[in-house]
Amino acid sequence: MIRLILSDVDGTITHRDRRIDVAAIEAIRKAIGRGILVSLVSGNVIPVMYGLEVFIGLNAPAFAENGGCYIMKEHVEAFFSKEKPEEFLRHIERITSAYGIFSNAWRLTSMGFGMREDDEERVREEAKKFGVTVTNSGYSWHILNPGQDKAFAFRKLMEMYSLEKDEILVIGDSENDMPMFREAVHSACVGTNEVLMSMAETVTSGKNSSGFVEALGKYGIV
Amino acid sequence: MIRLILSDVDGTITHRDRRIDVAAIEAIRKAIGRGILVSLVSGNVIPVMYGLEVFIGLNAPAFAENGGCYIMKEHVEAFFSKEKPEEFLRHIERITSAYGIFSNAWRLTSMGFGMREDDEERVREEAKKFGVTVTNSGYSWHILNPGQDKAFAFRKLMEMYSLEKDEILVIGDSENDMPMFREAVHSACVGTNEVLMSMAETVTSGKNSSGFVEALGKYGIV
Repeated sequence: MIRLILSDVDGTITHRDRRIDVAAIEAIRKAIGRGILVSLVSGNVIPVMYGLEVFIGLNAPAFAENGGCYIMKEHVEAFFSKEKPEEFLRHIERITSAYGIFSNAWRLTSMGFGMREDDEERVREEAKKFGVTVTNSGYSWHILNPGQDKAFAFRKLMEMYSLEKDEILVIGDSENDMPMFREAVHSACVGTNEVLMSMAETVTSGKNSSGFVEALGKYGIV
Repeated sequence: MIRLILSDVDGTITHRDRRIDVAAIEAIRKAIGRGILVSLVSGNVIPVMYGLEVFIGLNAPAFAENGGCYIMKEHVEAFFSKEKPEEFLRHIERITSAYGIFSNAWRLTSMGFGMREDDEERVREEAKKFGVTVTNSGYSWHILNPGQDKAFAFRKLMEMYSLEKDEILVIGDSENDMPMFREAVHSACVGTNEVLMSMAETVTSGKNSSGFVEALGKYGIV
């Protein structure tokens, strides 16, 4: 039986253009009304996740920065430092087209960036040398510390709520969701990333937020 | 004809408990679809308003800190400094039960605080002496610079979009909405604040977000 849903935000509870889907909000509230824990995990920053926590009305932590920190009821917990990601960002800004993104001002444990497509390979190589991870949410690139990913959030939730792996349903759409899909027993891919689809227990026919609502139906949650 | 809606957030597009009303999101999107500008103004902070801008899909600035700054398409504009509000907060923390709130970490132009009810008079007197404004959003208290209020946001929007006063509809529920109600020709009160009700052109029968949807209907917007 599913006791907790761990879901990505952008492209998963939102339409492709990042506008939140009211049907996804309603499905989340229905799940919560039935006693299921709903946690979100995103590459976005703490204050944005704080807004989602309050405006949706979540009952479990909202993880920011790909699992590097969370907020719950005005309590922030950070598990990593932004020092190394910041240093790596300065490094690739010097040698590639990479540039820091707007929301970095509010980051505690990671850095976000954009770049020209043809720099991807170079940046991935540099990251390996540097000992950081780079991952793509489909909306921006993220620089993370070793061990900082959505699987970290998954394990943190298991510990906090004494959950077994098969009591958690993870939902996502893109590359940065892979670590939690690897960890999970029950997973639903709502995107078109071929690798993520191959890792998922369920691939929804609807994409993005319509897939999210579909997945909650398939698992008998709403 | 209404060309722009300027609305409060907490208690206005949300239920009383701060959870956003999906019907309000849908009404806003319908208004935008009909070519109407929708701007929000809240006591909350820039990154929370940034989240609302993206997740709702606004087409006009989202003002934070009661009009002290705004965000639009990742561009932040701040019109005041937080220096004096910060100094006043330290002052009242010393002599009353006042305490800074959680979101102050992200503030650029104001400070938020809570206090015991019986300190209200004392704090209001001290604010007068100090030359700052204190106002209550119904969710927390705010310390603002002289001239920093929702009427400032109202006038800024008139200027940005070359609007006449009677082309703007303001919607709100509590004390900190009064300045924009004073400025506006068309206003709808969705709360139970007696003074605000007496200032409003329209008092909705539904309260909070159901009043918001009702008001958009009354003004022929949706």
